[in-house]
Amino acid sequence: MNYCSTCGEKVSLIIPEGDNRHRYVCESCETIHYENPKIVTGCIPQWQDKILLCKRAIEPRYGLWTLPAGFMENAETNIEGAARETAEEANAQVENMQLFCVFSIAHINQVYTMYRGDLVGGMASPGAESLDVALLDESEIPWKNIAFQVMHETLRLYYQDKKKGVFNTYYGDIIKQADGSFMVKYF
Amino acid sequence: MNYCSTCGEKVSLIIPEGDNRHRYVCESCETIHYENPKIVTGCIPQWQDKILLCKRAIEPRYGLWTLPAGFMENAETNIEGAARETAEEANAQVENMQLFCVFSIAHINQVYTMYRGDLVGGMASPGAESLDVALLDESEIPWKNIAFQVMHETLRLYYQDKKKGVFNTYYGDIIKQADGSFMVKYF
Repeated sequence: MNYCSTCGEKVSLIIPEGDNRHRYVCESCETIHYENPKIVTGCIPQWQDKILLCKRAIEPRYGLWTLPAGFMENAETNIEGAARETAEEANAQVENMQLFCVFSIAHINQVYTMYRGDLVGGMASPGAESLDVALLDESEIPWKNIAFQVMHETLRLYYQDKKKGVFNTYYGDIIKQADGSFMVKYF
Repeated sequence: MNYCSTCGEKVSLIIPEGDNRHRYVCESCETIHYENPKIVTGCIPQWQDKILLCKRAIEPRYGLWTLPAGFMENAETNIEGAARETAEEANAQVENMQLFCVFSIAHINQVYTMYRGDLVGGMASPGAESLDVALLDESEIPWKNIAFQVMHETLRLYYQDKKKGVFNTYYGDIIKQADGSFMVKYF
């Protein structure tokens, strides 16, 4: 951030009075420009004994598989966002959404919220951001070609709970370690 | 938003190519300025049969009671944010945090995440944003002087589950209705 989005003057990176963090502040119009984490919201679309995955047509992780998810927008609810992303990426409708897991990923300033939902009619086709979509059972999940650690972990929890016959709701931190690998810490 | 925070030129409110929503776009440096919901994270600090509430020393809702909570910051986890807010507002430490409820409040572009935590040593005192703090049992909760609907609802769920002896994890939408009242829809 270089300029004030309110008045167009240069901003300074300072700790405002009464605060304890550096913020971009406009010393001309006195606007403090807070920057906060973003929410990525998505779901596991379920159909009979299968779930829906999408093959990414965009970077990062072009060509790898993921659950439908994306940045939550203003003026929508968290569930509406997850359903919208499913519609955009897989031309699919989901209903009966239940919160399944929340992950904090502090090093990229993101919080993921993932739901379980029922895929209406088992119908899906690739949206603009997907090369392909597929309804897969557990044996068909491409574990080595899942796009993101958070999706791998969501799928792992899903099949763990599915075996038990009871779905819980999880919170975890995904922590990038010094060697570049990820650790997941549950609470 | 009037000016591009990257280059300082005027922004336009347009639908970018390949998008379906109006965004502030800089037609000079081509930056798209996305605006997304913010996360408010907080907790119910528990001590024996009591919980900790804070009396607000700031607007909005000056003088009313609330659970410690505030905007999540970059580079922290969701739980760290809830614990930090508890430290700032009540000089209190919390541990053993468990996700309790997530609320979407679409009309103000916010998602609340609220945890249950154990208040270390039962110790608390007013922080800069609090007039007072109090450890209260259920009969002492000032139900008519709770600052926000989302906190009222969190407390209601908390005592509902406490009576049952089992705490679940909830997701709900808080919807502002035409007459100004709030409806809460659970999923």
